[in-house]
Amino acid sequence: MRIDIISVLPELIESPFQASILKRAIEKGLVEVHFHNLRDYSTNKHKNVDDYQFGGGAGMVMSVEPIDKCISALKAEREYDEIIYMTPDGETLNQQMANGMSMLKNIIILCGHYKGVDQRVRDHFITKEISIGDYVLSGGELGAAILCDAIIRLIPGVLSNETSALTDSFQDNLLAPPIYTRPAEYKGWKVPDVLLSGNFAMIDKWREDMAYEHTKTRRPDLLERED
Amino acid sequence: MRIDIISVLPELIESPFQASILKRAIEKGLVEVHFHNLRDYSTNKHKNVDDYQFGGGAGMVMSVEPIDKCISALKAEREYDEIIYMTPDGETLNQQMANGMSMLKNIIILCGHYKGVDQRVRDHFITKEISIGDYVLSGGELGAAILCDAIIRLIPGVLSNETSALTDSFQDNLLAPPIYTRPAEYKGWKVPDVLLSGNFAMIDKWREDMAYEHTKTRRPDLLERED
Repeated sequence: MRIDIISVLPELIESPFQASILKRAIEKGLVEVHFHNLRDYSTNKHKNVDDYQFGGGAGMVMSVEPIDKCISALKAEREYDEIIYMTPDGETLNQQMANGMSMLKNIIILCGHYKGVDQRVRDHFITKEISIGDYVLSGGELGAAILCDAIIRLIPGVLSNETSALTDSFQDNLLAPPIYTRPAEYKGWKVPDVLLSGNFAMIDKWREDMAYEHTKTRRPDLLERED
Repeated sequence: MRIDIISVLPELIESPFQASILKRAIEKGLVEVHFHNLRDYSTNKHKNVDDYQFGGGAGMVMSVEPIDKCISALKAEREYDEIIYMTPDGETLNQQMANGMSMLKNIIILCGHYKGVDQRVRDHFITKEISIGDYVLSGGELGAAILCDAIIRLIPGVLSNETSALTDSFQDNLLAPPIYTRPAEYKGWKVPDVLLSGNFAMIDKWREDMAYEHTKTRRPDLLERED
């Protein structure tokens, strides 16, 4: 999988790709991530990529031309499955979407910054708008890192133990059951006896029950979903 | 505001705090962010902070003792309003939560990693569990960066123009209207006439109508919320 990230501040999200699972996925050659600084596509001498809003109002707007130039340059080199814009009013990311997107080949992720991008970018270049949740961030960069993390860890071979991802929360629309490790007792707080029993059928049953109870208490909406 | 972030991989989220709005907020003295490497609180010579699951299963679990030591050391120095655990089965972050949290004084954010933390940490140390969305990430670090970004930009004085945050999506449960900047025409794609009219009453009315229409089309659920 190849991911091209377009941003005015690519340095903002360098570190997540230099550590842990994302780094390992890149080193294993399972994913390629390329950062593009939008300022390199600016058409004026000040390297500006934003301007005031038409109609007045606070906050700068990212101009259409540098984005057009950057996306067009990338599209001239290969086919892209999706050109994604990270925006709080996009489709809300969930695990099912991440599962689907982990099977794509080439994607572009455009990170908004300042007040957002000129609407004509969204109307004419973007094929998919994604939000990571109902809150506003100072830019799309962290959202892009989240999207990459959610997708990349699902690519076969990225996680060292593939069954690990399958027992995460949201696969099967259930939250994960509680987990415990040593010591069996800490400050008087004990691990549930069943987990120490060695009876794996009973342990599986307990985990299923706990996952269901936990989901019913915290997120009954997940149990009603049919996707 | 003071934020203490506890993680096994603090280097994973250093870059977001060294750029843009988060950096400026820190430099202005409006927020202090301290990273704590959980390995510094390990009690064994290998600096381990995780162990196998009781009952078997894929994925390592973060042990209770190093987390207890780190949180206890911080609590001995000051009072904390919240001790937060980033987890996909926590309360889903939204703009109203971010607004409320931007007024807190001291918070701890514990980032889970691997399969998660020993349940006894959640039962005995954590006061609030937060999810940034219905998807699984390789760790809580990016979620912590998202939470910090969402909160910090709301602290008075952080954004250069305070009215900017008030017109963002989700304030008033409405998505933002479309925005445009120069040129007024690009490749035949024109900016709506009303925005060039200079009639600010009409522009305000158009923006309100567009925000409402946009919300009704994309996120009718937001219009039904009463919070």
